Amino acid sequence: MNFCSDNVTEICPEIIAALIAANERAMMPYGADKYTQTLESKFSSIFEVPVTVFPVATGSAANALALSVIAPGYGAIYCHAQSHINVDECGAPEFYTGGAKLVTLNGTDAQIHPSELSKALEKAGAGVVHHVQPAAVSITQATEAGTVYLPEEIGEIAKITHGHNLYLHVDGARFANAVVSLDCAPADITWRAGVDVLCLGATKNGAMAAEAVIFFNQDLAKTFAYRRKRSGHLFSKMRYLSTQLEAYITDDLWLKNATHANQMATKLAQGLVELPFVRLCHPVEANEIFVEIPKSVVNSLRGDGFHFYVWQEETLPIIRLVTAFNTREEHVDALLKSVKHHSLVDLME
Amino acid sequence: MNFCSDNVTEICPEIIAALIAANERAMMPYGADKYTQTLESKFSSIFEVPVTVFPVATGSAANALALSVIAPGYGAIYCHAQSHINVDECGAPEFYTGGAKLVTLNGTDAQIHPSELSKALEKAGAGVVHHVQPAAVSITQATEAGTVYLPEEIGEIAKITHGHNLYLHVDGARFANAVVSLDCAPADITWRAGVDVLCLGATKNGAMAAEAVIFFNQDLAKTFAYRRKRSGHLFSKMRYLSTQLEAYITDDLWLKNATHANQMATKLAQGLVELPFVRLCHPVEANEIFVEIPKSVVNSLRGDGFHFYVWQEETLPIIRLVTAFNTREEHVDALLKSVKHHSLVDLME
Amino acid sequence: MNFCSDNVTEICPEIIAALIAANERAMMPYGADKYTQTLESKFSSIFEVPVTVFPVATGSAANALALSVIAPGYGAIYCHAQSHINVDECGAPEFYTGGAKLVTLNGTDAQIHPSELSKALEKAGAGVVHHVQPAAVSITQATEAGTVYLPEEIGEIAKITHGHNLYLHVDGARFANAVVSLDCAPADITWRAGVDVLCLGATKNGAMAAEAVIFFNQDLAKTFAYRRKRSGHLFSKMRYLSTQLEAYITDDLWLKNATHANQMATKLAQGLVELPFVRLCHPVEANEIFVEIPKSVVNSLRGDGFHFYVWQEETLPIIRLVTAFNTREEHVDALLKSVKHHSLVDLME
Amino acid sequence: MNFCSDNVTEICPEIIAALIAANERAMMPYGADKYTQTLESKFSSIFEVPVTVFPVATGSAANALALSVIAPGYGAIYCHAQSHINVDECGAPEFYTGGAKLVTLNGTDAQIHPSELSKALEKAGAGVVHHVQPAAVSITQATEAGTVYLPEEIGEIAKITHGHNLYLHVDGARFANAVVSLDCAPADITWRAGVDVLCLGATKNGAMAAEAVIFFNQDLAKTFAYRRKRSGHLFSKMRYLSTQLEAYITDDLWLKNATHANQMATKLAQGLVELPFVRLCHPVEANEIFVEIPKSVVNSLRGDGFHFYVWQEETLPIIRLVTAFNTREEHVDALLKSVKHHSLVDLME
Repeated sequence: MNFCSDNVTEICPEIIAALIAANERAMMPYGADKYTQTLESKFSSIFEVPVTVFPVATGSAANALALSVIAPGYGAIYCHAQSHINVDECGAPEFYTGGAKLVTLNGTDAQIHPSELSKALEKAGAGVVHHVQPAAVSITQATEAGTVYLPEEIGEIAKITHGHNLYLHVDGARFANAVVSLDCAPADITWRAGVDVLCLGATKNGAMAAEAVIFFNQDLAKTFAYRRKRSGHLFSKMRYLSTQLEAYITDDLWLKNATHANQMATKLAQGLVELPFVRLCHPVEANEIFVEIPKSVVNSLRGDGFHFYVWQEETLPIIRLVTAFNTREEHVDALLKSVKHHSLVDLME
Repeated sequence: MNFCSDNVTEICPEIIAALIAANERAMMPYGADKYTQTLESKFSSIFEVPVTVFPVATGSAANALALSVIAPGYGAIYCHAQSHINVDECGAPEFYTGGAKLVTLNGTDAQIHPSELSKALEKAGAGVVHHVQPAAVSITQATEAGTVYLPEEIGEIAKITHGHNLYLHVDGARFANAVVSLDCAPADITWRAGVDVLCLGATKNGAMAAEAVIFFNQDLAKTFAYRRKRSGHLFSKMRYLSTQLEAYITDDLWLKNATHANQMATKLAQGLVELPFVRLCHPVEANEIFVEIPKSVVNSLRGDGFHFYVWQEETLPIIRLVTAFNTREEHVDALLKSVKHHSLVDLME
Repeated sequence: MNFCSDNVTEICPEIIAALIAANERAMMPYGADKYTQTLESKFSSIFEVPVTVFPVATGSAANALALSVIAPGYGAIYCHAQSHINVDECGAPEFYTGGAKLVTLNGTDAQIHPSELSKALEKAGAGVVHHVQPAAVSITQATEAGTVYLPEEIGEIAKITHGHNLYLHVDGARFANAVVSLDCAPADITWRAGVDVLCLGATKNGAMAAEAVIFFNQDLAKTFAYRRKRSGHLFSKMRYLSTQLEAYITDDLWLKNATHANQMATKLAQGLVELPFVRLCHPVEANEIFVEIPKSVVNSLRGDGFHFYVWQEETLPIIRLVTAFNTREEHVDALLKSVKHHSLVDLME
Repeated sequence: MNFCSDNVTEICPEIIAALIAANERAMMPYGADKYTQTLESKFSSIFEVPVTVFPVATGSAANALALSVIAPGYGAIYCHAQSHINVDECGAPEFYTGGAKLVTLNGTDAQIHPSELSKALEKAGAGVVHHVQPAAVSITQATEAGTVYLPEEIGEIAKITHGHNLYLHVDGARFANAVVSLDCAPADITWRAGVDVLCLGATKNGAMAAEAVIFFNQDLAKTFAYRRKRSGHLFSKMRYLSTQLEAYITDDLWLKNATHANQMATKLAQGLVELPFVRLCHPVEANEIFVEIPKSVVNSLRGDGFHFYVWQEETLPIIRLVTAFNTREEHVDALLKSVKHHSLVDLME
């Protein structure tokens, strides 16, 4: 019973079927195959606007490549201190941009607050040669805290971003979970709100290894193909990347998978919140739960066969529980039962 | 009937089976899975020496990452002018090394000749601050001309390389084809000959997208994991990379696949060499054939449904024909028949 | 009457005399001149230990080059949030290191506090591939707040730094001011305390444009010459850099210059502290004063012909006053008189 | 008697006087001084067109910074194989561009021949993602062989360059020598011929350390200031760079200095060409002479107190003789006499 992350999951049936189907015969390499050739029209349809799409295999590659287009080496990228690009990519954005600086903002629930962004940009020293030059803003949707930005929040951030002549990037490793959570059109939290480029994740939501870098601002896409190639992210057998993405957005698979993941998280959160000694650290709006529980319970849960990450080790540790497209409801029930049991034991001691 | 490249092929049955088998259940990400954990011992056994192995998805990534370990930004990498790293990776080695210079050597059949290398290194200005500093030598095995280096040739190159305190890298995108061609142990053309790091390809020989960076000089491997991560080449669902590589070297699959590819190339070459107006440009020692044919024949072959790349457009064009693990003998026969037919027509006109 | 910075100053007489003296005749370029050739022995004598020395022309170049030696692209450099390398070099450390991340610490008086450093390094994720890897610590002596680290404070920081296998860098743009302030041997706040590499500034303290990168850990110096060359910081007519540095450390010129600058700052601070409405923001330990004064006084001082930077614009602005080797005591008196006068006027209104 | 290089020279009297004059009083840093502020109008006047000018201290910095503006990391810079940027800058262009590839052309007298450039660009694979993308052409004026491009040759190269949507850069370390040699307007061999950016050297022709990066295509200049700062090439006491450049172009100093250097080279060449056993390797059109002489003569000249570099060590070695603004005619006479004497001795043996 593994709640460590949505990347511990296997490939969902529809996508593995697509991989097998794509294995039929010789096809021209590097994207000159039917799967890749039709991706843009399919994504354009999903997003209700013409987009330029580049498949890559990992989220770090997607983010770093996208950021390299919108931030020069002497540029600054504004992001949340807890953002994946700042914490978990071993400096990939810095590498790909040739040294851009990630300027971090704080803000509850891993969200950038527009007023904080505004303040930071005003004192950034744009035009002053001694300082790195504000170039881009990056937000994560859903966030690293399992919360989501509302369309109007993104709109406000985009307005500030563009008001300072910067570009807006969205790390959408869990974008489907956000769409489902908000019950909105994908367009509503991207280009309609002012997003310039989205890294849309599929890996965590059922794919093997596939992400789509989607440019709404298509002018920005011109150099991307060279950047992808020279970073070793152009696959020769590209069809196997593209077919994953095609299957992902066919028949709403991405939304169905995310719906299940979110439902399991909601159920888990609702059960946890009723328990003594247990405190949710953030609203549960997608498929991640951060919960403070007694240290003894952590150990007991492990003894019961549950896998998860301890996010912060303290007297009252915080653990992270992540649900996925294939999380079984009985595992959620078992986890809730186990937490309840150990918390009560803890209470009685 | 596609002779364009070995990367137009689908995944071979054993490897697609391995992908499906690896899809069984949740597994810890980033290489903490059983497939990845056992790779090193399996490769160590194949190479008869302890090795450090890193799976990545593309050959350009493998090469660029490996070179970034052995050449600093102010370094020079000696390679053949026609080498893939020099011509076909859109500057990946330069990007990953932070600006190292590829110093190119000529040499027949896309091979570096030891004496040329020696000469180049002697006048390279090692220790002179104005010049980039010799850091690494890179050879391709099998070469971009479809030829192979003999073990003693590699040994000689390695001796010169190490004699100047450089490291020796092998781009082994078609390494299996070379092993089969030479009928030698993999060790004979790697560490026993003095190779420090090998990028062993699987993609062109039956895999979906998988290459192994193999360090014989294990000290060099220390920083690789960080470099791979920050370039976005660490897969979360790593098992799907590792299982490809595992299947690739299990039961000699890699050698079987390469044997077939080489046999088809040999057959094709033997047929071509007997024809009038046709000239082989290089010895056919692996699975690539470069052949000079009349321009009219090029067009006629295309009309007959054959796909291939024109390598050089001249009065007598050079076309490249590549065979693969799944090239059908009847296609080879058909191609030979077609060339013969059109050459004769050409002759009579 | 210019208190903006110590870089508004002209060249001090001894150094301009040295420049003229070095202009006598043809000399071999790139450091093969008598001035450069003898620098190391002279600096070794000043620092009481063999050192490797590289002259460069700017402080940003010195810092960025030094940091490029001790931090890889996937590395993290720990520094104070207000440090020059973080705020005022337009991303030079990131550029030269190929993307290292500057991890910032807070701390009063622009100083890193050992316990904060310790805490940061313990949770840095050393060895975890997702995170940039702790590589170096950088402190500024004297600090950007005009304070100085005590030898034992540096010793403590060095111990933590080395305890985590990192290197310790000192940005010594105002190093002479610190030496004078502490009345210690240069060795006491460098290698004896555990410093690996010092960027010793001369420009702000009487030179035209000259800084010395001084390696106490001489093993680190091996690649520096190539890094300097390929960044365009190797001067052909090197003698004109070296002669500045030679003159700078001859007959204690650097200390004499700094003594005067510090004395002027002390006098200014002592006068300011007695005034109403005026508050020193930091202890005045070198040649910089940060002082909170009424907004009206700021304007009046400008009207009186004083030049200075407003560091922070608020109801009670903070201005920075910097003294230098050639600050005239009568200007200090005039400034004090002016502040006093306007503060009293302000008081009476 | 030093004929090694024009960078072995001291500062010419007018420029050292300018340095002393600029040392008068406090001035605002980083270019906010009167010398820097007036540079652009003075250079615009010299070049008869509005230009944007950035002073830097070294030629490698000037070239690498200029190239970083016109070539991306995935770009290719076409230059002569013997060009300074390719041979003598330890990879500076690669570093500053983030990995661009220098594609080298051969051509007599260190000059790119338009037809060769054309041919190279046509087969460069523009738009093909596997190959680095043609971005810039760089020529050296006067060349590394001491020859000069005619205005019409530059015009032809520029036409090809712009025809492929590339930019044209000129390394003008010895630009003054070319202007004097051609007896043309500076405009004739720069913007009028199609040059986008010129690195105009002063160091080799009388300055201490000063070069001007001059943008004729002023749109290209927008990001330069940030690039200069983050590479550590923005001087705080900028006046000392700018005053050198101002003096350099005042009262035709640069042309007077170059005229003398060229005259001395011409005299030397005329004397040498009459001698037996001596062969000029290139036309002598500026201030550099490459001459083939017997090995015994090389040694004898050294014994006579002449300094020079041996460019190529063979049975008939090639030596390089460089004259400068301050080369004394009697030294030229002495050198000629010495060569004559030793050649005759050689002849008689």
